[in-house]
Amino acid sequence: MATRRPIKTDIAWSTTDRITVMGLDVCKDILGKVSLGDMAYLEMTGRLPTARESVVFNAIAVCLVEHGLTPSALVTRLTIAGAPEAMQAAIGAGLCGLGSVFVGSMEDAARLLQQAMPVPDPHADIATLARELVDRQLASGGNVPGIGHHIHKPVDPRAPALFAIARENGFEGPYVALMQAVAEEAGRRLGKRLPVNATGAIAAIACELGLPWDIVRGIGVMARAIGLVAHVLEELRNPLAREMKNMVEDMATAHHRPAA
Amino acid sequence: MATRRPIKTDIAWSTTDRITVMGLDVCKDILGKVSLGDMAYLEMTGRLPTARESVVFNAIAVCLVEHGLTPSALVTRLTIAGAPEAMQAAIGAGLCGLGSVFVGSMEDAARLLQQAMPVPDPHADIATLARELVDRQLASGGNVPGIGHHIHKPVDPRAPALFAIARENGFEGPYVALMQAVAEEAGRRLGKRLPVNATGAIAAIACELGLPWDIVRGIGVMARAIGLVAHVLEELRNPLAREMKNMVEDMATAHHRPAA
Amino acid sequence: MATRRPIKTDIAWSTTDRITVMGLDVCKDILGKVSLGDMAYLEMTGRLPTARESVVFNAIAVCLVEHGLTPSALVTRLTIAGAPEAMQAAIGAGLCGLGSVFVGSMEDAARLLQQAMPVPDPHADIATLARELVDRQLASGGNVPGIGHHIHKPVDPRAPALFAIARENGFEGPYVALMQAVAEEAGRRLGKRLPVNATGAIAAIACELGLPWDIVRGIGVMARAIGLVAHVLEELRNPLAREMKNMVEDMATAHHRPAA
Amino acid sequence: MATRRPIKTDIAWSTTDRITVMGLDVCKDILGKVSLGDMAYLEMTGRLPTARESVVFNAIAVCLVEHGLTPSALVTRLTIAGAPEAMQAAIGAGLCGLGSVFVGSMEDAARLLQQAMPVPDPHADIATLARELVDRQLASGGNVPGIGHHIHKPVDPRAPALFAIARENGFEGPYVALMQAVAEEAGRRLGKRLPVNATGAIAAIACELGLPWDIVRGIGVMARAIGLVAHVLEELRNPLAREMKNMVEDMATAHHRPAA
Repeated sequence: MATRRPIKTDIAWSTTDRITVMGLDVCKDILGKVSLGDMAYLEMTGRLPTARESVVFNAIAVCLVEHGLTPSALVTRLTIAGAPEAMQAAIGAGLCGLGSVFVGSMEDAARLLQQAMPVPDPHADIATLARELVDRQLASGGNVPGIGHHIHKPVDPRAPALFAIARENGFEGPYVALMQAVAEEAGRRLGKRLPVNATGAIAAIACELGLPWDIVRGIGVMARAIGLVAHVLEELRNPLAREMKNMVEDMATAHHRPAA
Repeated sequence: MATRRPIKTDIAWSTTDRITVMGLDVCKDILGKVSLGDMAYLEMTGRLPTARESVVFNAIAVCLVEHGLTPSALVTRLTIAGAPEAMQAAIGAGLCGLGSVFVGSMEDAARLLQQAMPVPDPHADIATLARELVDRQLASGGNVPGIGHHIHKPVDPRAPALFAIARENGFEGPYVALMQAVAEEAGRRLGKRLPVNATGAIAAIACELGLPWDIVRGIGVMARAIGLVAHVLEELRNPLAREMKNMVEDMATAHHRPAA
Repeated sequence: MATRRPIKTDIAWSTTDRITVMGLDVCKDILGKVSLGDMAYLEMTGRLPTARESVVFNAIAVCLVEHGLTPSALVTRLTIAGAPEAMQAAIGAGLCGLGSVFVGSMEDAARLLQQAMPVPDPHADIATLARELVDRQLASGGNVPGIGHHIHKPVDPRAPALFAIARENGFEGPYVALMQAVAEEAGRRLGKRLPVNATGAIAAIACELGLPWDIVRGIGVMARAIGLVAHVLEELRNPLAREMKNMVEDMATAHHRPAA
Repeated sequence: MATRRPIKTDIAWSTTDRITVMGLDVCKDILGKVSLGDMAYLEMTGRLPTARESVVFNAIAVCLVEHGLTPSALVTRLTIAGAPEAMQAAIGAGLCGLGSVFVGSMEDAARLLQQAMPVPDPHADIATLARELVDRQLASGGNVPGIGHHIHKPVDPRAPALFAIARENGFEGPYVALMQAVAEEAGRRLGKRLPVNATGAIAAIACELGLPWDIVRGIGVMARAIGLVAHVLEELRNPLAREMKNMVEDMATAHHRPAA
């Protein structure tokens, strides 16, 4: 049957005695030699990371695994409460909310950084690029993503921790500098201190690692899938979803029901 | 507002300057020190793995990341083709099919092993346990999960590779022995060689690591979420979903449409 | 390309000028002539309903559309809060929890009724069938699905309303009788009044309509998809998900955080 | 516990003996009196439709139920093949792809119509509005949604069928006129005949019904959930997903595997 466009994949294939992923032999080259984080890097880039890339990539991925009782975690818990036989769907449902509001700000920050500096340039005029980036965002009525935090004030402690890891491994380059300049510029314009947050740090470091911005959300999605497994387990062992649902339903409909 | 059952979580919490996950300080104890695979172990067990546990756990998780154009991968690709703005939902949709048929056999194998030997017992009569396990499965009309493979014949090469990693790290104990004895017994009863496959090896090793069987599917779900990111990327760069859909639709409706 | 099993569908196909669904011409036979509920019946059975079947089928489907702030509705609302650009994924996520616990009891009731009486038999010994059905369920440690209600006491008012609609349209046959006998028998055995609830009534009426039990969950899934649209809209116009999440997160982690 | 924003819903609530949806008593006002399509209208607008609104709304919803082996249908079928115990998740996964590419064009068309004419105006200068709308779309590099069809040429037969139903029921007003003028204008500018397609007709008629454009996608999502039930059933009775997957996997990896 002729197809107009070839149907082909270059990710993985196998024969009776050999399984190949991204050109590597799973049994000889991967199992026991490649960690889960490095496997994720292989999946995202097509090659294994260097030792330094591995430390930095693992750090940003790890940072996204567990954020406690997020909307996603609540979704997974409410879903497993109704379908305990389908853990995979509870985690799948939990991932569906990782959109423009939560994980999207990481993607937005990476996009703005790469649009401002398509190729990393150690000689770039960072201050000017930052000013122009902030100008464009504010002029278009948008927020500047990756700065400030509603809970972690004055500074989201994960951002300096991640930047230190990047620095120690040679990945504190022009994108990190640009992200920090953006935060300073935005803070000046908006009249409050808005340091780079974890989202902004991860976005900048992902740019340093050479990941295209339209891939960056994938780090958050895979990391959160790991974290949601913990919420499935806690919900199975020590549930809270039904109680939460009963409480919220009572609160939300009290104005319609006659006083008890 | 009083609740009948306390609404509480012990996974993660934070204050303005500190983020805690499973009792560890994310900035001091985790970032830059814990790899993604070890973070997954922390999420699943509440503690970090030893060096040997880490090698073994990472190996079984890595083994589940990428299986090529699986139904899940096709689901993710068909979904991103219709909603490229929602990568997270494409991956979430892809996870939904990791149920009783595909990933479930790993869970089933782990359950049968743990039901046959609730506590790992180095002095157990493995041959008798295996015989009884196979008896029960065949009597109930079920398959014996974790053995044989429709493509990788005579042996799924991942199984011996994983068992070797378990052995080198001190995790080739009674569950691995029981799984292998089950494969031999089932092969004898069914009259064909049915060696332990990757699924069976992972199930047995998960039991050696002390993971309860009802958690085991979670390793598959988190690992596959990582793999599905690669399929999102390939579909964005070099799509196949639409062409596949057109081809299949034409094939499947040809008997109803008039000859062209 | 040869396939071992033919890839074919008989649901719908089209040519340049004609679109056919279940053998009907969409433009000539369906649009403007078939209501959404009757279209659902066509999709589930392959033919349009009679006028009486239509009333009865629409009634049971309508009954499942909206149950207020269910776990599913909360899931949809939490998901749209994070990904407002992907309404379809918020509804898809909401459906994922319609599993064994909530919608499953309807499927279970239909299954038990059809297993007890594979073919509707107006001369069946209903009392004996009911006693045996309840015996089997209690002996196996299971609940009897479709009876009692934790809020609507002593009687779920939807059950008699649905049974009246079935009666008026000639669908109050042996499955309805069996469901009611099961409720009486179970109440006697368990020493409390447990009348048929909405779930049990829908299951029995679905059996009267000739729907196989493994289809019955589909009525709940399609109906709830309709209801979840209303929750998307209310969440967009008058949100509660974030506030709920903040409240629950505070409650659930209070024991770990230092007193404010 | 004080919340900053009230947590409340006005969709549904219940007491021990009464269940209320959108202010109506489910048992007295809805069951047996309201069809599934009218219930959907109630959920979307907060009131029951008039007889003419009902015909028109049901027609556009019905039109979206079943489009054969769409990507969504394939997703549902691939998912049920792996998790037959979780029909709800298979349908949920299928909905996830109803994004910007497929269902989104309906939403886009409705949005453009409402932005061009925020309030329906029988005296509007339709030709000028259409020219300006097409100008803006083409200038921004976008497509004009709701016109042309890759299969149904020269005319998608559903569009005139839907417009006829709208006309007979008094809903062929200024939005329908604008949509048709847009199609003519775009055809003139692009030098080919591009009549309004089903998507454009539904969008225009939804505007006539007074539905806000950001709700319109919801009609597609609920309708498709109904259609996906049929694909679950056919996949359970007469499967094609595995065969499709095997075929596609073979095709897509042939260039990497040694010749057999």
